[in-house]
Amino acid sequence: MKEVNLKRGIKALVFDAYGTLFDVSSVVSVCNELFPDQGKELSQIWRAKQLEYTWLRSLMGRYEDFWKVTEDALIFACKALNLLCELSVCDRLMEAYLHLDPYPEVRQALSALSSYPLAILSNGSPRMLKALVESAGLEGVFVPIISADEAGIYKPSPRVYQLAPQKLGIDRGSIGFVSSNSFDVNGAKSFGFWTCWVNRLNNTWDEIGFLPDVTVNKLTDLTNILKLSR
Amino acid sequence: MKEVNLKRGIKALVFDAYGTLFDVSSVVSVCNELFPDQGKELSQIWRAKQLEYTWLRSLMGRYEDFWKVTEDALIFACKALNLLCELSVCDRLMEAYLHLDPYPEVRQALSALSSYPLAILSNGSPRMLKALVESAGLEGVFVPIISADEAGIYKPSPRVYQLAPQKLGIDRGSIGFVSSNSFDVNGAKSFGFWTCWVNRLNNTWDEIGFLPDVTVNKLTDLTNILKLSR
Repeated sequence: MKEVNLKRGIKALVFDAYGTLFDVSSVVSVCNELFPDQGKELSQIWRAKQLEYTWLRSLMGRYEDFWKVTEDALIFACKALNLLCELSVCDRLMEAYLHLDPYPEVRQALSALSSYPLAILSNGSPRMLKALVESAGLEGVFVPIISADEAGIYKPSPRVYQLAPQKLGIDRGSIGFVSSNSFDVNGAKSFGFWTCWVNRLNNTWDEIGFLPDVTVNKLTDLTNILKLSR
Repeated sequence: MKEVNLKRGIKALVFDAYGTLFDVSSVVSVCNELFPDQGKELSQIWRAKQLEYTWLRSLMGRYEDFWKVTEDALIFACKALNLLCELSVCDRLMEAYLHLDPYPEVRQALSALSSYPLAILSNGSPRMLKALVESAGLEGVFVPIISADEAGIYKPSPRVYQLAPQKLGIDRGSIGFVSSNSFDVNGAKSFGFWTCWVNRLNNTWDEIGFLPDVTVNKLTDLTNILKLSR
């Protein structure tokens, strides 16, 4: 058992940001404040379209950065729900995306994993990721913080995942990739990372041809799995 | 007015299949029969994931044909709703995808547009499209019936839209592309087609950077628009 796990030989851990380290549903409270009773639905459509637009723009070869895509998704969500999204309202909602809460166990997990080089690989634009990490008081924890913006395309394109081995100087097979987004874990596994799916909400795995190496309910569970494999 | 419209110079009409000519919600009745009261939700998740998987597989560079993607999406939808999808049940649901009803006005509209070369450009696999057209009694109406399968990637990749000018021998600017799927019209417009969005259900337009040249509520409305431009 120990030897089998040792073969993983993981030399660095790379984390997805939105939904994995930071709770995208944090925006619900701002949504609810501005649009009582419709906050949950607004935030759900907003998030779904945000992802959809990253895929569609990538396929169309019409990349725009994640701030623009997030704003466009918000405009769609407001229109779909017949909500008037004035500039000041739109600004407040967008601002919320810069201050998402880390999930409760994130600090403890990162501390326990600090013997590994830790990095972020996210769709977020560099400015958004900087704000997010600073707002959570996690400066210096992730080196490097890698944005899909450098590839000019979004996950799950292999061109995005390729940024991690390139920046870290570590072979793709020795990188452990951690994400709560099932499509992202599929993409990372397809690319050749060792993968961990953080399934906090008991979601259904996406059928796109791959399986995660391990599945955990929360990030702290990963520390035990990796300890066993040392 | 007439002269401006004349400049469109549309020489052929190319139709999306699923959701545009053929009603994907036709499967609801079979879904309801097999899983009473959950048919609508099942068919909605099924359709949403079917599209999502085409985008994700395209971006991952892991193309599988539309039959496989549709089956995978069905497996996901059943799992997500805790429905037991035995092989015979799965087969019946998949079979329904080969016999979708055309929308009520489709025959009349196609008849009125028959002075144009008419084609289909769809994500569907060649076998699926053949079955669909035959089942609706529309053999010979569309020449050619073009499948994204030939490009080995899905819409809205420009490589798919490129198949139409290539097969028709007509410049992309002289092709009118008709779809009910907002993302598809965005992709087609980005590629360079003249585009018509058939918005039967008063859906919200997707914010991916483009607008349709015309929007109609039903396919028969397109005939008047094109008559004016002759």
